[in-house]
Amino acid sequence: MNSLQKNSGILINGQFDANLPVMDRGLAYGDGVYRTFVVRQGTPLLWAMQYQKLLHDAQQLNLNICPAEQLLHEIQLLSADSVQCVIKVIITRGEGGRGYAIPANCMENRILVLSEYPQYAEHILEHGAKIFLCELRLSHQPKLAGIKHLNRLENVLARSECKLIEFQDGLLLDQNDNVVECTSGNIFARFGNQLITPKLHDCGVAGVVRDWIIQQSHQWSLETQESMLTLSQLEQADEVLMTNSVIGAMNISQLNNITWHHNTLAKQIRKALGISA
Amino acid sequence: MNSLQKNSGILINGQFDANLPVMDRGLAYGDGVYRTFVVRQGTPLLWAMQYQKLLHDAQQLNLNICPAEQLLHEIQLLSADSVQCVIKVIITRGEGGRGYAIPANCMENRILVLSEYPQYAEHILEHGAKIFLCELRLSHQPKLAGIKHLNRLENVLARSECKLIEFQDGLLLDQNDNVVECTSGNIFARFGNQLITPKLHDCGVAGVVRDWIIQQSHQWSLETQESMLTLSQLEQADEVLMTNSVIGAMNISQLNNITWHHNTLAKQIRKALGISA
Repeated sequence: MNSLQKNSGILINGQFDANLPVMDRGLAYGDGVYRTFVVRQGTPLLWAMQYQKLLHDAQQLNLNICPAEQLLHEIQLLSADSVQCVIKVIITRGEGGRGYAIPANCMENRILVLSEYPQYAEHILEHGAKIFLCELRLSHQPKLAGIKHLNRLENVLARSECKLIEFQDGLLLDQNDNVVECTSGNIFARFGNQLITPKLHDCGVAGVVRDWIIQQSHQWSLETQESMLTLSQLEQADEVLMTNSVIGAMNISQLNNITWHHNTLAKQIRKALGISA
Repeated sequence: MNSLQKNSGILINGQFDANLPVMDRGLAYGDGVYRTFVVRQGTPLLWAMQYQKLLHDAQQLNLNICPAEQLLHEIQLLSADSVQCVIKVIITRGEGGRGYAIPANCMENRILVLSEYPQYAEHILEHGAKIFLCELRLSHQPKLAGIKHLNRLENVLARSECKLIEFQDGLLLDQNDNVVECTSGNIFARFGNQLITPKLHDCGVAGVVRDWIIQQSHQWSLETQESMLTLSQLEQADEVLMTNSVIGAMNISQLNNITWHHNTLAKQIRKALGISA
């Protein structure tokens, strides 16, 4: 087994490797899309939905991706030694010269990166997380809204506003001061048996767990609606959740001086997703 | 001389190389800044301003860059065999794990890429270029406006709206339908002896040649003002220019059914910059 065949934790176009040509347009312009999800014993969380979402996002940028079977095979190859891990799949436009115009002969690069499943503190899983309110307001770009693309400087800047480790994440508003999402996941607010999650027509990332909760919420006797959500409405919620494809769902217990005391829905969602975090 | 010492046209942290670790946050999030400029016989166009702009943009994202002397040395090393070429300098956050939070031990990567100086058609240099009007509207993000960062999907999507080779570039408006820039350079409109270029507080990239023209316009008996500019105001201009650090300046002769017949200022600017394109 030579070094190229060893499991480096990274697969590039099906080969174990760890380096990408500098001329990849993923680096030059963030010209690509990605997904990050938990993989348990070779099975990605909500795999069919993950692939459909990756395909959808890729199509929005006119990127080609490999068939689901091939991608799943590579995920299983990469995660063969792990009971539970996180895999990130990146599809870039591929190598190109200078200039924004996409060369006719561009060939997408497919990158899979394995990482350990993160350790979440027990008290966060039990009682919910504290988050801060980001000062940065998400910009409106309908042509990119909802897509998990590689242009994520807004999230980087917003996340770096607060370095205190007691805050698990930051809440992002848009430029009209409406609630959009957390830096690393979507947000849901429960009012009685109504579950509200912000519309993502102008900004934000439409996550797979978000879609799944919208479809499945009836199993917890909830009705979900995508709607505008202000900060003062959020304050009135009975329960607030952050969702993504790694933790599944996490209750939010505190945002600045606002606290929410209900914290059972995230656990129910994690259980339904089979996430043991 | 081994392969690492050969001039691959790419320097990474001072070493000839062509590959970057996949875990670089430049790829993951577009977490970095860059500049592209013409280099003639080892001298970058407006070098002092280029370095100051790179430093400014890096500081906006809290990135460290090497001293000017070191960067210039690397530019000269890379361009040693070229009379005239284009060099792109990329500064990325460096390698990091998963998650938007910037790891404390992140070390910036410095990438220099050499490419040939492009061939501009004689009729464009003489009579100006045709451009199209992009449908995509630039989003407002004051925290990133003006910075040449690696999140350039808006430019990629806008440029790819029109694939006809007769169009040299696309004109970008913002979400209030004000003129901002072209996909690959800034824009100036001359009205008599007044030169107007859009304010870039909400979006757009503040280029070095733009800054230089603002400082130098008196030498062509012009007064420059940064101001709001609508499409119908642009239509009334005597002369319209696109500027960047590769071509310097290029007259625009046509946008859809609007034509501008004056086309002498770009040549004067190129001459003053010493660009022989």
